[in-house]
Amino acid sequence: MTNDPNTITAAILVIGDEILSGRTKDKNIGTIADYLTAVGIDLREVRIVPDEPGAIVGAVNALRAAYTYLFTTGGIGPTHDDITADCIAQAFGVGIDVDPRARAMLLERHRPEDLNPARLRMARIPDGADLIANPISKAPGFRIGNVIVMAGVPAIMQAMLDAVGPTLPTGRRVLSETVEAGNVPEGTYAADLSEIAGRYADVSIGSYPSMTQAGFANRIVARGRDAGAVARARAEIEALVGRLRG
Amino acid sequence: MTNDPNTITAAILVIGDEILSGRTKDKNIGTIADYLTAVGIDLREVRIVPDEPGAIVGAVNALRAAYTYLFTTGGIGPTHDDITADCIAQAFGVGIDVDPRARAMLLERHRPEDLNPARLRMARIPDGADLIANPISKAPGFRIGNVIVMAGVPAIMQAMLDAVGPTLPTGRRVLSETVEAGNVPEGTYAADLSEIAGRYADVSIGSYPSMTQAGFANRIVARGRDAGAVARARAEIEALVGRLRG
Repeated sequence: MTNDPNTITAAILVIGDEILSGRTKDKNIGTIADYLTAVGIDLREVRIVPDEPGAIVGAVNALRAAYTYLFTTGGIGPTHDDITADCIAQAFGVGIDVDPRARAMLLERHRPEDLNPARLRMARIPDGADLIANPISKAPGFRIGNVIVMAGVPAIMQAMLDAVGPTLPTGRRVLSETVEAGNVPEGTYAADLSEIAGRYADVSIGSYPSMTQAGFANRIVARGRDAGAVARARAEIEALVGRLRG
Repeated sequence: MTNDPNTITAAILVIGDEILSGRTKDKNIGTIADYLTAVGIDLREVRIVPDEPGAIVGAVNALRAAYTYLFTTGGIGPTHDDITADCIAQAFGVGIDVDPRARAMLLERHRPEDLNPARLRMARIPDGADLIANPISKAPGFRIGNVIVMAGVPAIMQAMLDAVGPTLPTGRRVLSETVEAGNVPEGTYAADLSEIAGRYADVSIGSYPSMTQAGFANRIVARGRDAGAVARARAEIEALVGRLRG
């Protein structure tokens, strides 16, 4: 696909030692990717970084400058390794303190006498940010500028994405058509597929091999925002695969 | 954990539009993360980028400069969207051509008359690279400098990791101890846990909430290379959780 200047783009920043050590397997990237694709926002980059201020601040500033939106997950709980909010404040060069709106949200779940300093950490919000409701455990996410800060627990991340998603201006949806090539080897259709791809500048055509017990299960996908072009490309790809299946 | 200058570090670069669109859910990051942790290499960063030369070359050069090793997955098949090898050559400023050793590997699977230009693309290897055998579909991965280039299909990636892994100098293994805190709220142990973490500079202590049908299932993990320090930290964390469970 050519890069349309009107395209709305996004990046994801996953924050957490537990993902890098392999102890926790990330599920949020796939969830957010599916969501963005469905609403016509192009996910252009993902990074995973450890719970270290330098790494987080550097990645936040690189990604928020490069894309329309940056979504972060992880690091907004009450423990000492939850440093995302402070790092976001540092990246934006703004202050951070307990936000009365966030404190009120925490009081929906905790009695005032249980709102200890650790829990109050979850109400520390960078100056100028808007809150994102958390219907599950109340501690909010937030949005500042083009950066959307969400929890790492998948169910809570999903709830925050559901809350913030509808507030974002979205793009023209990318249509996707899949041709199953089955065990037709990529090497037999690669040249013709490349020729087709060359003729459809506005359609992104990819070939994705995967393996099953029965051998390769290849799949060719045509994606683009022009429904007619995607349909024409798909028809050509189908004809190509049909010829090879003979 | 403090940063030991002898620590061996790594990054992963996942190359592929299909991951960013959500159509394919990545499985390789978790596999490589587990492997590196097991052999004592610190995975410090992961990036996922689209099938675009600028994005790939930029990420390769940033990550190979910053870490001991860079592992890439994806983009080494026979189709037009498989551009990883060319991008690696560009990143290193070296030539790329059909490598006779790689061609010989492909001939283990394909008859000479079937080795068409598309399939021969899989034998294009940057100058100076060493090959990584692919017992499954023969098209090799390769290593150039500190960059290890592997396939995206998980079974093939795993085979390549198994082949190249034992050739890498590895580090002192990180030991990990987990204390199950169950439904003891993070907010009740956060302050004491922070105090423990402050006293163990060489142990990385993290608190990881997760949710089950029954509510939160929190877990505290102590990681480090000093077995005695990890064991002492674990004992303190266990005592803390035990007091709160009371």
